[in-house]
Amino acid sequence: MTPPPVFDDWMRQTLDQVERALEHWVPCDAPAGLGDGMRYGVLDGGKRLRPMLVRAASEAVQGLPEAALRAGVAVELIHAYSLVHDDMPCMDNDVLRRGKPTVHVRYGEASAMLVGDAMQALAFEVLTPDGPEVPQALQARLCGLLARAAGHAGMAGGQAIDLAAIGRRLDESALRDMHRRKTGALLQASVMMGAATGSADAQALAGLSTYGAALGLAFQVVDDILDVTQGSDKLGKTAGKDVHQNKPTYVSVLGLQAARDEARRLHEAALLALDGCGLPDTTHLRQLADLVVDREH
Amino acid sequence: MTPPPVFDDWMRQTLDQVERALEHWVPCDAPAGLGDGMRYGVLDGGKRLRPMLVRAASEAVQGLPEAALRAGVAVELIHAYSLVHDDMPCMDNDVLRRGKPTVHVRYGEASAMLVGDAMQALAFEVLTPDGPEVPQALQARLCGLLARAAGHAGMAGGQAIDLAAIGRRLDESALRDMHRRKTGALLQASVMMGAATGSADAQALAGLSTYGAALGLAFQVVDDILDVTQGSDKLGKTAGKDVHQNKPTYVSVLGLQAARDEARRLHEAALLALDGCGLPDTTHLRQLADLVVDREH
Repeated sequence: MTPPPVFDDWMRQTLDQVERALEHWVPCDAPAGLGDGMRYGVLDGGKRLRPMLVRAASEAVQGLPEAALRAGVAVELIHAYSLVHDDMPCMDNDVLRRGKPTVHVRYGEASAMLVGDAMQALAFEVLTPDGPEVPQALQARLCGLLARAAGHAGMAGGQAIDLAAIGRRLDESALRDMHRRKTGALLQASVMMGAATGSADAQALAGLSTYGAALGLAFQVVDDILDVTQGSDKLGKTAGKDVHQNKPTYVSVLGLQAARDEARRLHEAALLALDGCGLPDTTHLRQLADLVVDREH
Repeated sequence: MTPPPVFDDWMRQTLDQVERALEHWVPCDAPAGLGDGMRYGVLDGGKRLRPMLVRAASEAVQGLPEAALRAGVAVELIHAYSLVHDDMPCMDNDVLRRGKPTVHVRYGEASAMLVGDAMQALAFEVLTPDGPEVPQALQARLCGLLARAAGHAGMAGGQAIDLAAIGRRLDESALRDMHRRKTGALLQASVMMGAATGSADAQALAGLSTYGAALGLAFQVVDDILDVTQGSDKLGKTAGKDVHQNKPTYVSVLGLQAARDEARRLHEAALLALDGCGLPDTTHLRQLADLVVDREH
């Protein structure tokens, strides 16, 4: 499905805004090359899906644009740090990311670890400006949502399961639990952080939460499908590595066709949740769900 | 100098409180052994100097005890994660910490990286409870102080300088800059987070900030001295490793006697700053400064 031109404009504008913000907030002047590594790891690459989800959710609840931008950048920094650490030799040992050598290949392992660590801290720096641009209660709420999505119950926990699952068989429910944490938690948090920047009632929050959960899982199912159906040049990262590393995926557990059916089912669940959330305009959230399922890389 | 018995009681009580809080907040149930690694890396060890500084500063400004406890635990989690990552083979490659095998020796490198990553996130989770126990404006302030102390301009930046300095000569001012970030930033932040939990005027904040900076640097000067004057059994970590790794230290740059003089000078500066801060009772902050300079491990 080709997105309509208006959505294209919105995406391009969001991407520009996020790139400019990252350019501004990721430091040039951090000591001893740390800033170079951080910028290399996060600038000029990435689909910026998470900041787009934050912005779309924020706009759906008439949220504060400045808070949404900071939240989007913060989520993207957490995502980027997880990729930097994940690519290291002791984890996935990957040399290619977004079509470029990975951070540890370019800057060395010790620097890559520090780059990731500093990116995680920077996410919380960006969320807590000293000035009045984001009310402090909202700053606290955003920090809490992000920390929980990134931590032991969310992304880091999912990665621990992933690590322990290498070479083992997981059933569908264990696989879903792993992906819900590893990828889903941060995508869902993107939606909920966007929602936190404005006023959403309980019905809207519940709908957005269900949407975020379904979309987060759909993203990973599609990732697993693309890993076996696309080449490295299209993906910008090493294709087929899940199979190669003997990791359980939706495709290895369910088979390719059932994985595609699952992606379609989750896509429908995400759209249905938006129908029930009582918000007047969820067009961009809808279009982002289409994009997640129909993407080719 | 032996601390008076009343201070001993206060320290023991603080230690108990911090251990219980860590026991409570560091999860048993994080997936795939991640919780075990986190608990191994932070429980039952450590002097808990940073939580003590938070509590002493908080008490000096009649701060909220619950906020001070959470802030102390959060700072300790950041400190503990930095040790876990610092000990890894790509960094200092150390096998002994607090008298036990380091986390990567016990759980493997990939797990150690995730343990550290999840600890950093947990610090911000602990600072942002959902309930009313810590006002949200204070939560935001504490997150902001901690993130800046941990990140590229603070601890992570200092570690990057440290990494780049191996085998090179630093002059005294470059060495001081490195240590101010690497160790000093988090110690100073401990004091300032404690101060944030209560009401401190500009004079008090300035005095506490100067105290924290002097104490932070004094801590590192003493660390450098102990590294060459004490054995591994006393330190609970590998002694003499800075010399072995050819890292610049206060002792290698200034010589042992001048390093001792510097520690004394910083100790006096810390006490002088407390004299000028206009707070009625800074006894515990004073005693912690004595402890930092007079410690034997």
